[in-house]
Amino acid sequence: MSNVKIQPRLPKGMRDFLPQEMLKRNYVFDVVREVFHLYGFEPLQTPVLELAEILMGKYGEDAEKLIYHAQHPGGKEELALRYDLTVPLARIIGQYPAEITLPFKRYQLSPVWRAERPQRGRYREFYQCDVDIVGIADMSADAEVIGVVVSTLKKLGFPQFVVKLNNRKLLTAIGQYSGVPDSQLGDLYRSVDKFDKIGAEGVRKELVERGVNGDAVARMMDLIVAQEPGLGSLDVLEQAMGNIPAAQEGIRELRELAGFLEDMYISQEDYAVDFTMVRGLGYYTGPIFETVIEEPNLGSVSGGGRYDDLVGLFRKESAPTTGVSLGIERIIDLMDLLNLYPAEIIGTVVQVFVSVFDQSTRAESTKLAAELRAQGINVELQLEERKLGRQFQFADRKHIPLVAVLGPEEIAQGAVKIKRLSDGEEFTVQRNEVTTKVRELLGAKA
Amino acid sequence: MSNVKIQPRLPKGMRDFLPQEMLKRNYVFDVVREVFHLYGFEPLQTPVLELAEILMGKYGEDAEKLIYHAQHPGGKEELALRYDLTVPLARIIGQYPAEITLPFKRYQLSPVWRAERPQRGRYREFYQCDVDIVGIADMSADAEVIGVVVSTLKKLGFPQFVVKLNNRKLLTAIGQYSGVPDSQLGDLYRSVDKFDKIGAEGVRKELVERGVNGDAVARMMDLIVAQEPGLGSLDVLEQAMGNIPAAQEGIRELRELAGFLEDMYISQEDYAVDFTMVRGLGYYTGPIFETVIEEPNLGSVSGGGRYDDLVGLFRKESAPTTGVSLGIERIIDLMDLLNLYPAEIIGTVVQVFVSVFDQSTRAESTKLAAELRAQGINVELQLEERKLGRQFQFADRKHIPLVAVLGPEEIAQGAVKIKRLSDGEEFTVQRNEVTTKVRELLGAKA
Repeated sequence: MSNVKIQPRLPKGMRDFLPQEMLKRNYVFDVVREVFHLYGFEPLQTPVLELAEILMGKYGEDAEKLIYHAQHPGGKEELALRYDLTVPLARIIGQYPAEITLPFKRYQLSPVWRAERPQRGRYREFYQCDVDIVGIADMSADAEVIGVVVSTLKKLGFPQFVVKLNNRKLLTAIGQYSGVPDSQLGDLYRSVDKFDKIGAEGVRKELVERGVNGDAVARMMDLIVAQEPGLGSLDVLEQAMGNIPAAQEGIRELRELAGFLEDMYISQEDYAVDFTMVRGLGYYTGPIFETVIEEPNLGSVSGGGRYDDLVGLFRKESAPTTGVSLGIERIIDLMDLLNLYPAEIIGTVVQVFVSVFDQSTRAESTKLAAELRAQGINVELQLEERKLGRQFQFADRKHIPLVAVLGPEEIAQGAVKIKRLSDGEEFTVQRNEVTTKVRELLGAKA
Repeated sequence: MSNVKIQPRLPKGMRDFLPQEMLKRNYVFDVVREVFHLYGFEPLQTPVLELAEILMGKYGEDAEKLIYHAQHPGGKEELALRYDLTVPLARIIGQYPAEITLPFKRYQLSPVWRAERPQRGRYREFYQCDVDIVGIADMSADAEVIGVVVSTLKKLGFPQFVVKLNNRKLLTAIGQYSGVPDSQLGDLYRSVDKFDKIGAEGVRKELVERGVNGDAVARMMDLIVAQEPGLGSLDVLEQAMGNIPAAQEGIRELRELAGFLEDMYISQEDYAVDFTMVRGLGYYTGPIFETVIEEPNLGSVSGGGRYDDLVGLFRKESAPTTGVSLGIERIIDLMDLLNLYPAEIIGTVVQVFVSVFDQSTRAESTKLAAELRAQGINVELQLEERKLGRQFQFADRKHIPLVAVLGPEEIAQGAVKIKRLSDGEEFTVQRNEVTTKVRELLGAKA
């Protein structure tokens, strides 16, 4: 070991998660996994380091500048750190034809690395949380991944959110209907994508500036701003563009999707058709979804859609695929903002601090700690000689709810004193009743 | 997206974990975390990428050749992938003096990267699982980390294991007593470390070849092979070396440690003093522990000890620290070998496959799936049109225990048919009793 002291610090955009933060993250991760399992999604994990050739050429030039490359002295492989969870999924599907039976429903909850300029809420190492169904062209699959989002957000306690639905086929049809040439469809998507930020007038102006014909823009804007209740906006579109095949298909898909959502008992309040919702990624081929919190206006917490071509990157034929990505880092932050973390996971895993009265009673305290642990109670035991007052201070600072005291008096009586730190109330119980009492007090707290 | 198909493959020494494997890993991780929480250890997570200066110079030249370095185009920081969890712990302790109160009991369960030559059971990306207590010099802390190992292995179902105990101070004292000069102590440790492999005669021969005085070797060998029951070996050492201060201290520490283990109700069968157990790492300063499975002889599953100097790497003063590392990858493999995974986690998370009789009944099946999920049952729903027989085949191949059938007949009767795939038995129950029946059948299976 070198004796030169190095300043302890982190690389730019990286984070440590100290215990209090980890408890919150793990709570969200556990809820998310529980819901994924309810829907029959199975866990998958790919390595952090991939061969560079697997990643490069998949994300576009600008994105690929953000990829971290890795090497060890003498290493001959070109390695890169995972940039997302979708390309690894495509690789997996191509690599294990014998092991993977379609439909394949998997989730992956893993960190990815992107050397973006760090800013508030944006990090260079962050978790992604993806749920995808590979091998089903039917809208029932799209309904399931939307179901996962709705169930997860409800289970986490989010009081309000809306899953916005659109369809890439409709966007294409709207372009055709309005007379926007195919070569300008990309411009159209990019401008419409800014609808939330720059409004209808802004989009109109931008499209005209990009050289899209003014009449075409006007025709298009009339359609995309349609905001009828329920699926009413689809009727408006059908009337206008019912003769365009892409429109027919897109409308049919969204109606089918909504039908499945209804069968799944998902309330109509939880989703809405929104033709201004575009999603940035280029690879979507059908329905697209984005979940936003509007009251208060907190932005997007999930996005996804159908991408039927991407899984073919590493195999002869593609397979129809749909999925969503939960904005898990954003969700973790919003849970704090909205006060959604349950009280019992705040601060510490420890439920009871077992104090040590003095060295002569240490053995009894050690035994009590072991007994409580054997009953499934999370215990921190005082591990060195320390004044009782300071032990209480420590337990208090760590937000441990209960402190057990086992002094000579209690030991003589075969009893234990339990102090609840929130209000200072004390309970003296017989040793064989401690677990029951502790559970009762913890339950009352939660 | 590029259209050139790349062969889907992994870098050397890296692994994908498909769902069946992930379920086993997650089971072990969950048990491990549960036990850590019982003992009051809190989760910590550090980033995968550290500044290279934090890692380099800490592990020795040979080890540091195995470290992966990382870079992004235009990046100015020298980055490296985490090599272990101990140096990051030392960094954390130095970096957050205001946030971290000692004693600090943390665990970290995270992958690390080492570019070793891959071989059976050895990978370049693998998980480490460390539990450490920073800030306690007392042997009660060493007893707690041993307690964690014992409780974890018992909870995972390992039928036999022994925690071997030794003390670096005793090894030093044995060297002094035998007349091995301080300059040769390193040789002595390295040779004794091979005791399991080359036996007493092998160690003797190697030491003499390394130039250690023959008499000294003989005196030492007499002591380290002492194998008295319980703590009896300590008595043998005390008689021989009771006048050497390092021996006195080492013996006192091990006796205290054993006293705490007894108070913790840890059986004397679960641990043993073994002076031939050395542990490779250089930084230990006191008691050292290694857990081995001997029946059948499966080697080491955990190692650790006290290292009072290392945490000082990134702060003015060090802090007494003790900890253990569970050989989590080894444990995951041995659980398979010893058949310790519970039946209900094998194969799939899915508990019920809800089949779809035909398109006319799909809505009812979708509803049933939603109802079961709302009751906490993990459900896979058939998502496209497919013959019922093929749906059963799929459920069977995925090892899903139960299949729900909801044909026109069942729907007319307000009933559901549940087929148990293990024996083909069928149960027809009313719709509102499905959850109860499913739970009953799943319980019977587990």
